[in-house]
Amino acid sequence: MRVPFLDVAGVIDWIGQVGTDRIIAELADKIESAFLRWDTFSKSARVAEHSRFGVIELMPVSDERTYGFKFVNGHPANPKKNLQTVTAFGVLADVATGYPTFVAEMTILTALRTAATSVVAARTLANTEATSLAFIGAGAQAEFQAIGLRTAFGSSRVRVFDVDQKASAKFCRNLEPLGFEIEVASTASEAAAGAQIVTTCTADKRRAVVLPDDAVAPGMHLNALGGDCPGKTELDPTTLDRAAVFVEFEPQTRLEGEIQTKPAEFAVTELWRVLTKNAPGRSAPSQITVFDSVGFAIEDLVALQFTQEHTAGSDLTSGLDLIASPTDPKDLFALANRSQSRSDVSSVLTANLKESLGHLLQ
Amino acid sequence: MRVPFLDVAGVIDWIGQVGTDRIIAELADKIESAFLRWDTFSKSARVAEHSRFGVIELMPVSDERTYGFKFVNGHPANPKKNLQTVTAFGVLADVATGYPTFVAEMTILTALRTAATSVVAARTLANTEATSLAFIGAGAQAEFQAIGLRTAFGSSRVRVFDVDQKASAKFCRNLEPLGFEIEVASTASEAAAGAQIVTTCTADKRRAVVLPDDAVAPGMHLNALGGDCPGKTELDPTTLDRAAVFVEFEPQTRLEGEIQTKPAEFAVTELWRVLTKNAPGRSAPSQITVFDSVGFAIEDLVALQFTQEHTAGSDLTSGLDLIASPTDPKDLFALANRSQSRSDVSSVLTANLKESLGHLLQ
Repeated sequence: MRVPFLDVAGVIDWIGQVGTDRIIAELADKIESAFLRWDTFSKSARVAEHSRFGVIELMPVSDERTYGFKFVNGHPANPKKNLQTVTAFGVLADVATGYPTFVAEMTILTALRTAATSVVAARTLANTEATSLAFIGAGAQAEFQAIGLRTAFGSSRVRVFDVDQKASAKFCRNLEPLGFEIEVASTASEAAAGAQIVTTCTADKRRAVVLPDDAVAPGMHLNALGGDCPGKTELDPTTLDRAAVFVEFEPQTRLEGEIQTKPAEFAVTELWRVLTKNAPGRSAPSQITVFDSVGFAIEDLVALQFTQEHTAGSDLTSGLDLIASPTDPKDLFALANRSQSRSDVSSVLTANLKESLGHLLQ
Repeated sequence: MRVPFLDVAGVIDWIGQVGTDRIIAELADKIESAFLRWDTFSKSARVAEHSRFGVIELMPVSDERTYGFKFVNGHPANPKKNLQTVTAFGVLADVATGYPTFVAEMTILTALRTAATSVVAARTLANTEATSLAFIGAGAQAEFQAIGLRTAFGSSRVRVFDVDQKASAKFCRNLEPLGFEIEVASTASEAAAGAQIVTTCTADKRRAVVLPDDAVAPGMHLNALGGDCPGKTELDPTTLDRAAVFVEFEPQTRLEGEIQTKPAEFAVTELWRVLTKNAPGRSAPSQITVFDSVGFAIEDLVALQFTQEHTAGSDLTSGLDLIASPTDPKDLFALANRSQSRSDVSSVLTANLKESLGHLLQ
């Protein structure tokens, strides 16, 4: 029994075959479908282990048939060690048997599903005539976000600001060949000016204001991605007061999102309620909408299932010898000692052979 | 960057090289050492996802340097489908970077560490003149338990009872060649009669009494393993009233152990407190002691670390391409699109080649 495993090289080859834009667009549809059946999932806030270096999290979720979880870390000082801030992998399992059915790298898949979730939020909440996009933060996730939003809104005009000029340069280098018209701004306010959709996506693990409140104009939609763990926020709390705030799973976002700066009674709307028409979305073209995105396990489950379906039976996956499978399920011991018995057997065979050889040579 | 992976075949070969008895004995010492520094671990009850089929759990734990978690299921109907009741795998990660450092199968490792934990409990709590062992339940874990206890107490005399006669036969088949003198009993009471250490280890997911209270004699030590998730117990609650009850991590055992049949004020002692001399263990030779074992994440962390140390650099492990490692940590996009760029590059190269060939052939 081998568990299909999609490794980093496999995901990269898959992206090469299908295309980042198409994967994000299809994933957005799948995530929206999953949000429409929100009540069919067993949900819990993720289990986070915080240290002075960062956080390591497990994000489990399941529906009636499929269980999934993601292992993900967040370590803001990692880039200084030439490591990624966020790395991840994920596992699917069969609810009926508990057996793992799929293992995949998720560092790249997380970037894809986060972009897809931003697309779902933006097309639900933003004004439809979004012609200009702004990015505050040009780190590992930024290009995926830009491609997702361009596919959804048709806008290739982007302004970007990052405190790290090399990050902005990298953003341009990756996206300009794909037809994006990018302007590197010298402040966050300059980047946001005139944009209909602003994505904040920075990695600093503290309470920061990466977008001043006076840069947030009426009618803007904000995908606020970087306020995603306790003690880490990106927006001026005043901006939240002026906006309608939408979240994925309220109990988790209260702990991790921008709204951690707000009291428990601060009103938010879970995005799935807007999608299912159980709650209003944007109320007026001039309203400011904020998607306080922290990343939720359902998105990972969908991403894993989508990837599993896409790659099943292909040579993109290999098989992991992860689950012991004794012929008699109760006889784990015999399996575990197979190697030992084999050596016993071979010493017996060797002894017999020596004896036979002895007879022959006599 | 590859993550060392010890697969099922690797664990089996390792057991073949080192021996089940030695692994359990060394693991018991390591688990005891870990329990002695109990306060240095960040602990939480495991995250369980229950369904009508069984349970899937994630068990995270960490100390200052190492994070670990185990994925484990419990599906009592699995053997009818020729699948294992319990399968597991585990992961270690570096707290400082969040990067995974080791992945291993844990179906077999769980059996080893559970046996090792039973050894720690029994040598701490049982009367030292234990000359006869009893097993109620001869399933997947039973032989590991027997080997662990024999190594610790020197007793090869075992009585076993299982409702499934084939399981008892398997138990004999596996252990008699190793020098065990085994008597198959026709009832649990018969198996327990005269034993100093009784191990209950059954898989039925309900409140059962697999060992009648009147079979529990003064002075007995019980390793009660099978009461290990909500709704699943093995002992008569009356037995608990007659005994001193010891647990691993009280908040988890209250939910999952034998003591779930008892009110919250029912007195228990965490085993580490006995080991560190912060609490008394057995008070008299005639006292009944119960180790209400449910399995705790620290044991898995120790098992993973022990196995990692033992197999590091050997050909028992392979390397998993699990973590995306872009040259520039912020440039995940370029890595993810490497394959796409390669195809672009090769089409350019092909075009150039065609042109050159065209020139040559003119």
